[in-house]
Formats: sequence, structure tokens, C-alpha cells
Amino acid sequence: MFVGELPVPRIQFHRSLAELKDKLLAMAALSQQALDAALDGYFKSDASLCHYVYENEPAINSAERELDEMAYDLLAMQQPMAIDLRFILAVIKINSDLERIGDQSVNIARLTEAVLDEPKVELPVDIEAMGEFSVSMIRMAVQSLLEADTDLAERVLVMDDVIDDMNRKAHGALMKVMEAGSPAAMQALNALIIARNLERISDHATNIAEDVIFWVRGADVRHKLTTFSE
Amino acid sequence: MFVGELPVPRIQFHRSLAELKDKLLAMAALSQQALDAALDGYFKSDASLCHYVYENEPAINSAERELDEMAYDLLAMQQPMAIDLRFILAVIKINSDLERIGDQSVNIARLTEAVLDEPKVELPVDIEAMGEFSVSMIRMAVQSLLEADTDLAERVLVMDDVIDDMNRKAHGALMKVMEAGSPAAMQALNALIIARNLERISDHATNIAEDVIFWVRGADVRHKLTTFSE
Repeated sequence: MFVGELPVPRIQFHRSLAELKDKLLAMAALSQQALDAALDGYFKSDASLCHYVYENEPAINSAERELDEMAYDLLAMQQPMAIDLRFILAVIKINSDLERIGDQSVNIARLTEAVLDEPKVELPVDIEAMGEFSVSMIRMAVQSLLEADTDLAERVLVMDDVIDDMNRKAHGALMKVMEAGSPAAMQALNALIIARNLERISDHATNIAEDVIFWVRGADVRHKLTTFSE
Repeated sequence: MFVGELPVPRIQFHRSLAELKDKLLAMAALSQQALDAALDGYFKSDASLCHYVYENEPAINSAERELDEMAYDLLAMQQPMAIDLRFILAVIKINSDLERIGDQSVNIARLTEAVLDEPKVELPVDIEAMGEFSVSMIRMAVQSLLEADTDLAERVLVMDDVIDDMNRKAHGALMKVMEAGSPAAMQALNALIIARNLERISDHATNIAEDVIFWVRGADVRHKLTTFSE
């Protein structure tokens, strides 16, 4: 163990942090692509888009692992402090949220594929609006990460209630379709589960925004640690 | 910033790590209690158990925050290396999985309460078996953490396929109930979503087991980092 005896110059450390951030943004792009493809697949009833989502999941998983390793190595070798330490911890958490967005996108693709051959029916849910809302929450959360913009991150936090509400309404309306024993029951169920997936995706966007705030500000919610460690 | 100039003695650091582990085990107990209460509430159609789950969620959330802070402080002030660093990172991840188990338990309680007043019908799903299986996966994962037992952790990983399979079968069978337009459609839907929640809970148990392996062995899957940092 020679960490600390041979400290890598600060400038190289900061280059490594910038590289970590680039990798995280690339990871975010992969997750966003997966979600876009899953939603497009749903709207266009397009099996090839669903398959695209499945086929790209391994890439997301290995990007997650690679990022985790890099974050771990930086912690182990550089023993960063204060804002740098918070940044690396935020990366580890955001990384996991992005991977889960990938998982949720796979769920959406699977649910889409399950009803692909059925004649499309009108359902009392605006999956398109929910999808766009979730996509924009992720975009804003990633943007807040890119620019260390906590005001933007806070706007994401506020949006979470909107999608929760959309999901609740969708749930009630789709339940009625299913209770009526409609032949569209299966499509209604799948739409209901997709709505829940979108709501979960928004939760991950919210987590990302919270982690950006924690990184930049040392987070008010976690006030104990700022007095303790800085 | 005086970290490193005034190093806290190793013995105190190891005491802090033991304390962190105790706190994590207490957090695990809270999550396990929430899940037990949610499942009991489902089987006994007991609203007071559902309320118990809601009322205990804030305690889980604040335990999560407290643990995260403590882990952060240890990283910031002690700059741990190798197995100690891996332990603290594992704690941060396991903590988040335990909190999500609490969230899933709240979901189960909500779904239970939504059909509490309906006459109970026989459904083609063994939620009890799925529940017991998930509970035992968590118990084993927590035990593997307590004893740093990677063999036990590996047994958890294998169990994940079983519950995935149970969930898939439940999904198919319950879909048929819903498609038939049965008056039990709502109960069938809720059972279906509860089955999905239990499957997610098992995923969290699997994550915990993976983190235990990462902590103790430096994880084969992450072989790059072991050659790099040790």
C-alpha cells in the first residue's frame, strides 16, 4: 500500500474528476437513449425499438461497473476531501439511478412488446405526456449535473409531485377499464404498469437532482456532516 | 481543513466502523419490520398494520440519512483504504437498498388498504410463499453482512431466479383473472403489483449480497479495481 506516500499531483486528480464526470454524462446518455427508444417503441408499436432497448442494456450495465470502479479507485488512491469527496459519492449514487432508469426502460419495452399484436385501443391515460415529463426531468437533472446548477436541480424536485399525480389519476382511470372486463384489459394493465415505471423514473431523476445539490452545497438536509467535516 | 494532520487513532476508527455496522443492522431491522408488517397486513386484512408501515417510514428515511452522514464523515476524516474503504462504500449502497425495501413495503401496505373492504377472493397466486421467500432472502443477506459470510451471500444470488420465476407465473395467472372481467379484477391487479414489489425486494436483497461480496473479497466482478488499489 503506497497511497499517500506517492501522491499523484492535484492537477492530474482534477483531470481524473473531469473524466469521471464525462463518463457519468456518457452513462446518462445511454440511459436517456434507452428510455427514448422504449417510449418510441410504445407509441409506434415498433418491436425493433423494443429489441434495441434489450440489446443496449448490457452496455449500460458495464458502463455502470466501469464508473463504479473508477470512482472507487479515485477514493482509494486520492483520498479526496470536501467537495471532491462529495462529488465522487454523488457520482456513485447517480450512476446507480441511471442504471435503474435503464432497467425501467427495459420493463417498458417488455410491456410494449407483450401487447404489440393487439389492435390498439384508446386508453384513459396520456402516456405520451407522462413520458415527455419524465424525459424532461431526467434532462434537467443531467443538465444540473453538467453545470453544477443547484437552482435547476431544485426545479426537478418540484416536478416530482406532478408526475405522482399523473400516475395516481392514470391508475384510477385504467382500473375502471380493467374492472369493466373490457377486451382491452391487458393493454390497460400494461399502460398502468408503464405509468408506474415512468413515475419511478421520475423518482430517479429526483434522486439525481438531490445528489447534485449534495455535491455542490454540501446539502442543507445533511447539515450535520458539513459542520463535522469542513 | 486539518484532516490527516490530526489522525484519529486506528482503534477509534475501527470502533467507528463497528458502530457504522451496528447502525446498518438497526436500519435493516427497521426495513424488515416494515416488510413483515406489510405482509401481515395483507394476509390478515388489517388496516392498523398498514398504518404502522406508513408511520414508520419517516424513521427509516432518517436512519438512512444518519447512516449516510456517518459514512461520509468516516470517508472525509479517516481516508480509509482497501477493505475499510470497500466496507464504507458497501454500507452506502446497502443503506439505499434497505430504504427502498421500506418504500416497497409502503407500496404493499397501500395496495392492501385499497382492497380492504372487498370480500376476499381466492387468487391464483401464492403471495404468502413469495413473501416468505423475499423475507428469507433479506434475512440471509443481512446475516451475510453481519458475519462477513460470502458463501451465504452467494446463496442469496442464486435465489433471485426462483422469485423471478414465481413473479412471472403470478403475472400470467392474474392477467387471466383480469381479462375474464371478474369482479375480483381489482384484487387481482393489486396482487399482481404486490408480486412485482416482492420481486423488486428480492432484487434489493441480491444487491445487498453482492455488496457484501464486494466488501469482503474485493469482488471478482470488479477485478480491475483490486489490481489497481491493493
